[in-house]
Amino acid sequence: MWMPSQLPDIATQLKAAGYKGDPRQLADLTRAPMNAVVKVGGATGAFVSKDGLVLTNHHVAFGVIQYNSKADRDLIHDGFVAADRAGELPANPDFRVLVTTGFDRITDRILNDARGKQGRAYFDAIDAATKAVVADCEREAGTRCSVANMDYGSDFYLIRQLELRDVRLVYAPPESIGNYGDEIDNFMWPRHTGDFTLLRAYVGKDGKPADFAPDNVPYAPPAHLQISTRNVQQGDFAMLAGYPGVTYRHRMASEFKNQIEWQLPSRVALFDGIIDTVEGAAKGDKAAQVAYASQVQSMKNNLKRAQGELDGLRRSDAVRIRNTEEAALLAWLDKQPDGAATRKDIDAAQALLSGAMTTRDRDQLVSSIRGSTQLLKAALTVQRRAIERTKPDAQRESGYQERDEALIVGSFKQVQRRYDPKVEKAILAHLLAQYRALPTAQHLPEIDAVFGTTEADATAKLDALYAGTKLGDETVRLATLQDANVAASTDPMLVAAKTLLPAYLRLEEESKQRDGDLLRLRPAYMRALNAYSKSQGRAVYPDANSTLRVSYGKITPMSPRDGIDYRPLTTVQGIVEKHTGQAPFDAPKPLLDAIAKGDFGTTADPVLKTQTVDLMTNLDTTGGNSGSPVLDADGKLIGLNFDSNWEAVSASWYYDPRFKRAIHVDMRYLRWLLAKVYPAPHLLQEMHLPAE
Amino acid sequence: MWMPSQLPDIATQLKAAGYKGDPRQLADLTRAPMNAVVKVGGATGAFVSKDGLVLTNHHVAFGVIQYNSKADRDLIHDGFVAADRAGELPANPDFRVLVTTGFDRITDRILNDARGKQGRAYFDAIDAATKAVVADCEREAGTRCSVANMDYGSDFYLIRQLELRDVRLVYAPPESIGNYGDEIDNFMWPRHTGDFTLLRAYVGKDGKPADFAPDNVPYAPPAHLQISTRNVQQGDFAMLAGYPGVTYRHRMASEFKNQIEWQLPSRVALFDGIIDTVEGAAKGDKAAQVAYASQVQSMKNNLKRAQGELDGLRRSDAVRIRNTEEAALLAWLDKQPDGAATRKDIDAAQALLSGAMTTRDRDQLVSSIRGSTQLLKAALTVQRRAIERTKPDAQRESGYQERDEALIVGSFKQVQRRYDPKVEKAILAHLLAQYRALPTAQHLPEIDAVFGTTEADATAKLDALYAGTKLGDETVRLATLQDANVAASTDPMLVAAKTLLPAYLRLEEESKQRDGDLLRLRPAYMRALNAYSKSQGRAVYPDANSTLRVSYGKITPMSPRDGIDYRPLTTVQGIVEKHTGQAPFDAPKPLLDAIAKGDFGTTADPVLKTQTVDLMTNLDTTGGNSGSPVLDADGKLIGLNFDSNWEAVSASWYYDPRFKRAIHVDMRYLRWLLAKVYPAPHLLQEMHLPAE
Repeated sequence: MWMPSQLPDIATQLKAAGYKGDPRQLADLTRAPMNAVVKVGGATGAFVSKDGLVLTNHHVAFGVIQYNSKADRDLIHDGFVAADRAGELPANPDFRVLVTTGFDRITDRILNDARGKQGRAYFDAIDAATKAVVADCEREAGTRCSVANMDYGSDFYLIRQLELRDVRLVYAPPESIGNYGDEIDNFMWPRHTGDFTLLRAYVGKDGKPADFAPDNVPYAPPAHLQISTRNVQQGDFAMLAGYPGVTYRHRMASEFKNQIEWQLPSRVALFDGIIDTVEGAAKGDKAAQVAYASQVQSMKNNLKRAQGELDGLRRSDAVRIRNTEEAALLAWLDKQPDGAATRKDIDAAQALLSGAMTTRDRDQLVSSIRGSTQLLKAALTVQRRAIERTKPDAQRESGYQERDEALIVGSFKQVQRRYDPKVEKAILAHLLAQYRALPTAQHLPEIDAVFGTTEADATAKLDALYAGTKLGDETVRLATLQDANVAASTDPMLVAAKTLLPAYLRLEEESKQRDGDLLRLRPAYMRALNAYSKSQGRAVYPDANSTLRVSYGKITPMSPRDGIDYRPLTTVQGIVEKHTGQAPFDAPKPLLDAIAKGDFGTTADPVLKTQTVDLMTNLDTTGGNSGSPVLDADGKLIGLNFDSNWEAVSASWYYDPRFKRAIHVDMRYLRWLLAKVYPAPHLLQEMHLPAE
Repeated sequence: MWMPSQLPDIATQLKAAGYKGDPRQLADLTRAPMNAVVKVGGATGAFVSKDGLVLTNHHVAFGVIQYNSKADRDLIHDGFVAADRAGELPANPDFRVLVTTGFDRITDRILNDARGKQGRAYFDAIDAATKAVVADCEREAGTRCSVANMDYGSDFYLIRQLELRDVRLVYAPPESIGNYGDEIDNFMWPRHTGDFTLLRAYVGKDGKPADFAPDNVPYAPPAHLQISTRNVQQGDFAMLAGYPGVTYRHRMASEFKNQIEWQLPSRVALFDGIIDTVEGAAKGDKAAQVAYASQVQSMKNNLKRAQGELDGLRRSDAVRIRNTEEAALLAWLDKQPDGAATRKDIDAAQALLSGAMTTRDRDQLVSSIRGSTQLLKAALTVQRRAIERTKPDAQRESGYQERDEALIVGSFKQVQRRYDPKVEKAILAHLLAQYRALPTAQHLPEIDAVFGTTEADATAKLDALYAGTKLGDETVRLATLQDANVAASTDPMLVAAKTLLPAYLRLEEESKQRDGDLLRLRPAYMRALNAYSKSQGRAVYPDANSTLRVSYGKITPMSPRDGIDYRPLTTVQGIVEKHTGQAPFDAPKPLLDAIAKGDFGTTADPVLKTQTVDLMTNLDTTGGNSGSPVLDADGKLIGLNFDSNWEAVSASWYYDPRFKRAIHVDMRYLRWLLAKVYPAPHLLQEMHLPAE
């Protein structure tokens, strides 16, 4: 996940891998080809014509497709081909395409006030400087600005983007192509999904960003990518540009150990315990089962994901490897003439992390007492809101400002469909039993005051709490939001929340102090890591942070386990094999007919003698890379990224080349669909592609 | 699945495939190396030392291992290594090793009396001739004889075998090696099972077969196989000899169509319907659920298997292919000067099959009315037995002779644990509803008399039947077997069975008449097929019939579906990957330790740099091939067959080279286990294998 500006530094290895272009040309985000890569609806996309045509994923544009679907025009099910530009459909008004126009290092401007400060004050100074810079930058109309924090507070960049607000739907395959396999195939290979959609960005007649208007004109991007018409095959060079969200690969070794040996297993155990508790308490009560179905499903997904991440990190032996690496780094650092100051900061950061770990079980349980309940959480919100509302709106904690009121009301209404008193009592009893098993020194007086210190206490207190509260009544609950004197309420749940709240505020404050200090101290670790790696002749990319990154590699198979190889190209034969006629494996008839007919024209793979569908590469991606263009050695577009593989769910922490793969739509499949299945000859022409 | 005698005819293709030996030497079952291949416990095995050591599967020898296990000596769990010959443990007394000593064509002797007869008389004449030949042959002590029907009644062979009755357990790995993966991995690849066991055959001091006696001596086989010490790899020639049970590949095209378009789908529908009915009727009744758990599980397995077979046959497009092949065959036949007589027999056979198909739904339902009930089935047994017992024992129908009495009593006792009246009523109501939907012309008066002709009838009759019968009482049910006058019983279930029985006897007689005529007529089809194939330059092997067959091919990968390749060699890495600590993936500690140690000695694969476990080949196998030795181009033993793959469950009907694979233990894994994990240096030495 290289910053484009790093690519000239690694030009030798990039050329050795097969790239035929000039790595220096990739370095500037505001020049071609990088400025053809855009942010679309929170993910990535790319311009693919001079008239503002944008290629992104079906799942990224799904909101746009849904927004334009009605009872008598189901674009989700049927797909959509705009017959001409007049037929292109406006996206939902909050949908955006962002074109990067500036990327400037402003580290000193951001850190100036913070230097010398500590803890939360350090954090707040950076926050204030950031807000000021953004406000200043956004004075220019049609511009969206943000500050990117690189290497955990080491460097800051001001990103200036053109905000295109009139985006229209041009071409979408039916959901049974764009999302073929859905959740069942999600994260899976072999894959057979045509997860792409074409949009078009429009601007006002003056060429400036504008809200939708019928007489807006297509945006003329500064650059666009050309879809390849060449064959691709295993071993071919591939390169991807996009906006990966977040990775943790440069966290300290102790954080890896914590993640693998405590965080993931304890999360699995926590969710397992709560799921068992809910299922036990709701047994035989259909209404309660329905009320908790969504929460249970979400915990199960979370649990599965955590287990997958844990399996992956263990398989990669990440704890041992990171320990060894960090030991070597620190040994090197200690030999450097100016290493001591850096080492002091690293040790201080380590001490902060170690400190937090001493109460990690307690903190997770206390957080879960709020997070996994409905009524108690609502009561805590009421009391916290009462405090925040004594401040001017701008100074209130995020989540309690005027703009958040509708959200609070919504969540209070939702309680009715997601709550059952006996289940919530069972969850709390389960969590409190674990809490009581913690060392007494970690106990919080507020929790003890509300729930007691023995099982008998907890049972009695919970019974009284849920028998006495009127908050289960939606009218009563919503009325608390209008009650200026709610802090004085005698409803037992509100009284309990008022007692508990100081504990939550205290833990929150401790966490913010720690985060501020880590923001101050972590740059020492990154400085040492970068210097050490440089001394070893290796470049290091910063952890992902939603800024534009480039990865290069190749089309490559994978062995997921002993005796099995995954081929890196799938074919339409797999669509037929998976087709059951039932969603999500309900390939549409025009597609099945076209496959049976076997008329693949110029898009057929000359070796496989059939139509390919998806590609697999070893490109480095993470959440946010959806819609990233995949380029060949000549910079031509060969694939559209849309997923990664299950074996790589741990890659946000640790990149294991044996198992990290990315999954793309083969552009030959897109071309074939546009040529033969749901024809759009005018779009092929616009993209300078053969008619068949 | 070639008869060894056919191998000289296909010598050219066998040599071209890579076999380095003389195909003529393979032709005689009573000479080396074929006489080293033996029947063991109903499956296959091979001699692997001059002192009677027999290699077969763990699952074939499982009864022997179980027979020798006690509370304080769990050989199933722990495995077993006999320290010396004195430590070898006697098998259960009915366990046999059979060495072929004669294989002679006796077609004329068998058909002499039958010729000129028709229907059941034809069948009975063959049956009588067979019994006479076998009785004559078995006059020689220690000899077991049987007659093999080749090509559906075209040819008959007398097989003479030496019956070794003193068999002893020599070496068995723990179940967690010998059956690693159990039902979960059954039929699956990649596989990691060490499914082998070593036995030893003993004879009396006079060298003749004898019952177990401490002073018996090891049997000196006329030949034995040598386990290879060479490397094996993808593409290597492989050849397998064994006793495949039954295949249907030379059935007529209409039978393929019937199997794929009716038999398998209707079986799936029938079992689906019964399973739904049982689960519906037993809902909320734990005792009833338990009573039917085994029947439901068995139907589910059967259903899964039928569905797998159906999927495979459809994937291979078997109906269309067999239709085309048969049309070509008949077109050729019609042009032959003497083709008319043959064609007449084929048409007659076809007419018989078509006739049977007109009532196939009815016949399946009527059979299921007996087969899927407990109490009604018991009552039918009582009434049938009453009729059979009026005959001399030797003339009674098989299943009703004196030797079957214990089995009948056992099944009557078992009813108690597998029966619930409301569930059995529901099953019958379900089946009768389908029966009533059949064309009236197919209805049987006996069924109508007992269950009526409307839904209301059926409900009333079933209620009366199950309310009135006392057969649900075990004592009453068992007493019917002592009651000489049971045919006159007024128990409504026995009355119903007495009414129904003539219908069952009539259908049985029709079926036997048809089988007799098919035995007479099918040889015409086989004659035409063989002649036609010969005219095309192709040899044809007879369908499998538990006689010794040879298949040749190679170690080869497979693509089970688009995008996936299975490698043909698995390694110990897969054992570790699958290991969960819970059966059936509870690899024993000595194995895991040895893998971790990586000390693979001469048994390591030089390319993979690790220890292989199982092999996959494209050899042609079916049930009965368990324990078949797999030989390399030099006739050395490289693998031990133990399973085939799920994609090939349809291979008994249709051999599809894309999907038919066989799964073997790699002999290098056996050698490693004996050398390093559960050492048996004396056995390695006996088999002339390196100590490590």
